[in-house]
Amino acid sequence: MATKKKGGPAKISGKSSGKLPGKLKVAVCGASGYTGAELLRILHKHPKVEVTAVTSERSAGRSPADLYPQLHAYSGLTYEPLDRKKLVKKADLFFLALPHAASQEAVSFFHSKGKKVVDLSADFRLKDPAVYEKWYKTPHTALKSLGTAVYGLPELYRKEIKKATLVANPGCYPTASILGIAPALKAGAVETMGIVVDAKSGTSGAGRKADQALSYCEVNEGFKAYGVGVHRHTPEIEQELSAIADTPLRVDFTPHLLPVDRGILSTMYLRIAPGHGNTDISELYARAYEGEPFVKVLPPGEFPNIKDVRGTNRCLIGFKVNERTGTLIVVSVIDNLVKGASGQAVQNMNLMMGFRETTSLEDLALCP
Amino acid sequence: MATKKKGGPAKISGKSSGKLPGKLKVAVCGASGYTGAELLRILHKHPKVEVTAVTSERSAGRSPADLYPQLHAYSGLTYEPLDRKKLVKKADLFFLALPHAASQEAVSFFHSKGKKVVDLSADFRLKDPAVYEKWYKTPHTALKSLGTAVYGLPELYRKEIKKATLVANPGCYPTASILGIAPALKAGAVETMGIVVDAKSGTSGAGRKADQALSYCEVNEGFKAYGVGVHRHTPEIEQELSAIADTPLRVDFTPHLLPVDRGILSTMYLRIAPGHGNTDISELYARAYEGEPFVKVLPPGEFPNIKDVRGTNRCLIGFKVNERTGTLIVVSVIDNLVKGASGQAVQNMNLMMGFRETTSLEDLALCP
Amino acid sequence: MATKKKGGPAKISGKSSGKLPGKLKVAVCGASGYTGAELLRILHKHPKVEVTAVTSERSAGRSPADLYPQLHAYSGLTYEPLDRKKLVKKADLFFLALPHAASQEAVSFFHSKGKKVVDLSADFRLKDPAVYEKWYKTPHTALKSLGTAVYGLPELYRKEIKKATLVANPGCYPTASILGIAPALKAGAVETMGIVVDAKSGTSGAGRKADQALSYCEVNEGFKAYGVGVHRHTPEIEQELSAIADTPLRVDFTPHLLPVDRGILSTMYLRIAPGHGNTDISELYARAYEGEPFVKVLPPGEFPNIKDVRGTNRCLIGFKVNERTGTLIVVSVIDNLVKGASGQAVQNMNLMMGFRETTSLEDLALCP
Amino acid sequence: MATKKKGGPAKISGKSSGKLPGKLKVAVCGASGYTGAELLRILHKHPKVEVTAVTSERSAGRSPADLYPQLHAYSGLTYEPLDRKKLVKKADLFFLALPHAASQEAVSFFHSKGKKVVDLSADFRLKDPAVYEKWYKTPHTALKSLGTAVYGLPELYRKEIKKATLVANPGCYPTASILGIAPALKAGAVETMGIVVDAKSGTSGAGRKADQALSYCEVNEGFKAYGVGVHRHTPEIEQELSAIADTPLRVDFTPHLLPVDRGILSTMYLRIAPGHGNTDISELYARAYEGEPFVKVLPPGEFPNIKDVRGTNRCLIGFKVNERTGTLIVVSVIDNLVKGASGQAVQNMNLMMGFRETTSLEDLALCP
Repeated sequence: MATKKKGGPAKISGKSSGKLPGKLKVAVCGASGYTGAELLRILHKHPKVEVTAVTSERSAGRSPADLYPQLHAYSGLTYEPLDRKKLVKKADLFFLALPHAASQEAVSFFHSKGKKVVDLSADFRLKDPAVYEKWYKTPHTALKSLGTAVYGLPELYRKEIKKATLVANPGCYPTASILGIAPALKAGAVETMGIVVDAKSGTSGAGRKADQALSYCEVNEGFKAYGVGVHRHTPEIEQELSAIADTPLRVDFTPHLLPVDRGILSTMYLRIAPGHGNTDISELYARAYEGEPFVKVLPPGEFPNIKDVRGTNRCLIGFKVNERTGTLIVVSVIDNLVKGASGQAVQNMNLMMGFRETTSLEDLALCP
Repeated sequence: MATKKKGGPAKISGKSSGKLPGKLKVAVCGASGYTGAELLRILHKHPKVEVTAVTSERSAGRSPADLYPQLHAYSGLTYEPLDRKKLVKKADLFFLALPHAASQEAVSFFHSKGKKVVDLSADFRLKDPAVYEKWYKTPHTALKSLGTAVYGLPELYRKEIKKATLVANPGCYPTASILGIAPALKAGAVETMGIVVDAKSGTSGAGRKADQALSYCEVNEGFKAYGVGVHRHTPEIEQELSAIADTPLRVDFTPHLLPVDRGILSTMYLRIAPGHGNTDISELYARAYEGEPFVKVLPPGEFPNIKDVRGTNRCLIGFKVNERTGTLIVVSVIDNLVKGASGQAVQNMNLMMGFRETTSLEDLALCP
Repeated sequence: MATKKKGGPAKISGKSSGKLPGKLKVAVCGASGYTGAELLRILHKHPKVEVTAVTSERSAGRSPADLYPQLHAYSGLTYEPLDRKKLVKKADLFFLALPHAASQEAVSFFHSKGKKVVDLSADFRLKDPAVYEKWYKTPHTALKSLGTAVYGLPELYRKEIKKATLVANPGCYPTASILGIAPALKAGAVETMGIVVDAKSGTSGAGRKADQALSYCEVNEGFKAYGVGVHRHTPEIEQELSAIADTPLRVDFTPHLLPVDRGILSTMYLRIAPGHGNTDISELYARAYEGEPFVKVLPPGEFPNIKDVRGTNRCLIGFKVNERTGTLIVVSVIDNLVKGASGQAVQNMNLMMGFRETTSLEDLALCP
Repeated sequence: MATKKKGGPAKISGKSSGKLPGKLKVAVCGASGYTGAELLRILHKHPKVEVTAVTSERSAGRSPADLYPQLHAYSGLTYEPLDRKKLVKKADLFFLALPHAASQEAVSFFHSKGKKVVDLSADFRLKDPAVYEKWYKTPHTALKSLGTAVYGLPELYRKEIKKATLVANPGCYPTASILGIAPALKAGAVETMGIVVDAKSGTSGAGRKADQALSYCEVNEGFKAYGVGVHRHTPEIEQELSAIADTPLRVDFTPHLLPVDRGILSTMYLRIAPGHGNTDISELYARAYEGEPFVKVLPPGEFPNIKDVRGTNRCLIGFKVNERTGTLIVVSVIDNLVKGASGQAVQNMNLMMGFRETTSLEDLALCP
């Protein structure tokens, strides 16, 4: 690339080559999919981080820039197979964006070697291995690591994340949904029964693959529900909401596939608890997220668009108290690849490492 | 146009010019918007109908073919202002696709002159003028016609429509939602409390107009809720569901704007009534819609895509009994401009005139 | 399906079951892709045709309605493997939508048995087997059939098609491009050197398959050129334009991939021939396509949109004489799956069988 | 906004409020459209710049954050009417994104007061006032400023821009097209006759406004040419290419409207000059753009996608020598709002101010 020879910004060429003194060395395992690519995009802006290794079985020997022209700055980096012993020496913090189940072993290996780990799979999100096995149809065999894992939703567990060595990065739907429900539920303003989470996600949430059902002509101008009543993010949402409510609860969670690249919008229906008809929901939510750098509560009756947060780590929340029905309707939006995955992973890394929490996550969204 | 001079199909050129003996003469009032254009598209295929007049204040003097290249077959027809006295002589059946409130006067005029009317506005859908005034912020002044109007959902009121002289064509969201809920509610299989209707519509539902909020760059790659808790289709859904349940009920209805041209998908959450845990929902829905030419119930666990029905008058319904939560989740899809508006209007006309109900509504959807 | 039991239109259920007396029996070989599905969609409307067999190796045993919910009317028909001896008894006319090269054998078999054939592959479009071999990298081994094949562009070869037993249905890009260039070239109004064809196609042109490069997130919000200088439609365009000009000529043909489902727009640059600066191009094109049912020439300075013809067999042509540069710029649009494939195939069948040419091809496009 | 109260990054809140010592004060005139918003998005990342004023007649009194939720960081800034005397005191450098003609007066005022100006309108791009008047139908009345304006394409005029006080920021189509043609033309490898520029732009190029023709349902699933032979970017392209070729030349330039938010792809056809059949185009282009931070030449036969550069200031160039026809085909892509407008404006500011040229323009594109 011509830009490499001279005149290119030092930062770009330096990012992918030698090890810079004073920077945190990080590896991204499973870096050929959309989530991994998004991690690389965000880390490119991070002044305190150097990506020293990327893995991909299928694309070993190629560069991120070969797979994604957008990642041209990483032309000096080469995918390698996930050889744990080799990798463990190359980095101090590991991001894992591996398929579910595959993550268990790798995470516990790096973790046992004293490395910090942010796992973007579902393997360490569910505290109860029996629940994991029930929904993921495979036993959990890394119970020791599981016991120390912290659920990486900073708005709920910032203190724990700061001290964590293993963070289970939340799912995209749970992030949007839990942030939308938590304040009302915590305050007891809504009932724990009859919670409905009707969620819609952009197509990048399905990952990068050759799949006829995900081909352009099938998705474009279409819209459908999927995984109705059986989606694996259900127990994750229930676990966190149950913890907040301090009582076991269940939710109806229905995901839908949107014909857009990015974005999740979650529409939630909560029954106002007796005696809370006059609760000031606006005040309640504002207070809950006061000082939060990435969560914004909109004025009553205003609702967010997924386009408002595209490419950013932000979560916008709108709400309406429907007095006719006694329902609190909450709508939250995030970018499924950022706050719903890689951006939140970087936020967690920032917390774990004592970096400023918003580092490399401050850019504004494209408009349009 | 070259095709008009010779060789063009007789049907095309004949449709828009002289009056053909033996054909029903119909006028389309408010024919310059998407709903009116869709009526013209469908009526073009109708062997027993001749469109003799189209009205538009803004586009008077121009032809439907000028506004829509797709309507090239109507180049011989010219929009005229809505002069009721002139129009009343031109047709035997009137479709009105006028803005709400504007429809009241025109409908009652044509109706009083013994003409058949299918009104696509909301003006004659709500039986109770007080409810109309509350939601539409204007009094109802055509009470006589209102008293005779039949709600034009053939799956519920086929018998009445056949005898009707004034049919109030249902709204797009109500059509999808009522068809999805009716069988379970009628059978008493679900409760009348806590009904949630989370609906998503393509952008054509907003009509054809110059509006920055509807411009391509604002809608594309976006998704948002709107009219939360206050959308005017709410009382229409409630009226019909209350009638079915034989008790007043309320619903939480939340519409969303999809970045597609056409299609409505409605996701509905219904609480299984005590004692109905074992009801065979599949059987119940199949029986309810047996013989219906435009409604299809999918096998349990299968869910429809709006793309499956684009350009057609069909309604597809999928469902899932979520035993973990005691909820019946129903998903229905229609094309908002066809079964949600103009196609259903033609279906109603067919019923009113004794034509075969499916006439000009039998084409298959484009795939893709 | 409930609609089958009673009340459904006879035509729908009849189409896919028993053999109707007096109807032409047709088979569609390779009916699981978009082109085959589009054939089924169009033939569903055809009053003189009965589809008696559909083939697909991959989907044998399933129904078109299983693969495409849009084709619900074909639930009674089952894909079978392409067993030529079995098939030859089932139909009188064969549409073949097979991959290139695979078509040669099947076409010549059915053809040799006295069946009429419309081949939608490229195998019988190029008259010169050497040119075929050069561009398709495989020899042509069905020379006898090739010798009798007629290039199925009715606007150029209507007379020959009427008498043909084997029609080679044109490619999508060639259809749009040849129709746009033919009148000017034939009249000698433009030079044969320096012809540029810059064409853009919707994604359905790539067929239905699992291919990462065609996945939604790769195509959406994107646009790119492909096959620059090497696309196989080049020799087809050159063959027909050379025949029109009566001299060998070459073109620069560049296809691009549009993020839409359907449509081809071809922008063509032709150098005005000396002495033709004052030629009335409008008159020339109007005369060339006078009486053509599917081609429309727009007034000077007006240009068509692919959306105007979606789902129809029409070709719209706009043009501009750029006096500053001495260039005639022509823009033509078609639906790549209709006039660019299956619609034109039905048009050819209509001509071959003596049916009215426009039968089942008269519907108006959806707007929007 | 909760994020403002505490914990928010200092940079965000500081950007839009008080004047920071040591930062360049800039004003954005006409900051309510997409181009202005894009400037604000990019400047938000700029460590050496402070936006001290934004103007908009229509939105005076509101904040950029009111119009664009994406610009939340600018909630402390308020649009004001363009009062030149008031404004001139507020900033040292002025970006003007005003409508054509309106820019003339404002630019010459700020310029005459010793301020640096980057004008994003077309008013100072054409050197010859007669050409300006011919294409823009209005006389040029700021001839003094016009005489000193530098055409702001850094790859051609970097040296001049560094010393300029008034930079005329190039149009989006000209940027993509000139960068694609310049190397071959400068080297004399292609002829100056018969140049074809077939360009396609995303819809944001049309600006933010209420316009039925730009509404979602009109643009989506559509594609069309516009301004054929008469688009105002034609003389701009011709001026620059003529200067490069050192002889007056003309081009056929045809723009098209793409159903995407952002991106321009320009496909260019150039006739290989006699004796240049063996010229190494790859080497020629590589050398021409050696060291350029934002231009990348792809290997022969590879072609760029607009999606590769979305949100970035990059220009990717692919090419193919078509030996069959003697044509060099070049394809270039940019983001019309970045390298085609606001990003290039910031690049120009960086050069004028002696900042590092790539400052705030180094982020990678979103994928997908």
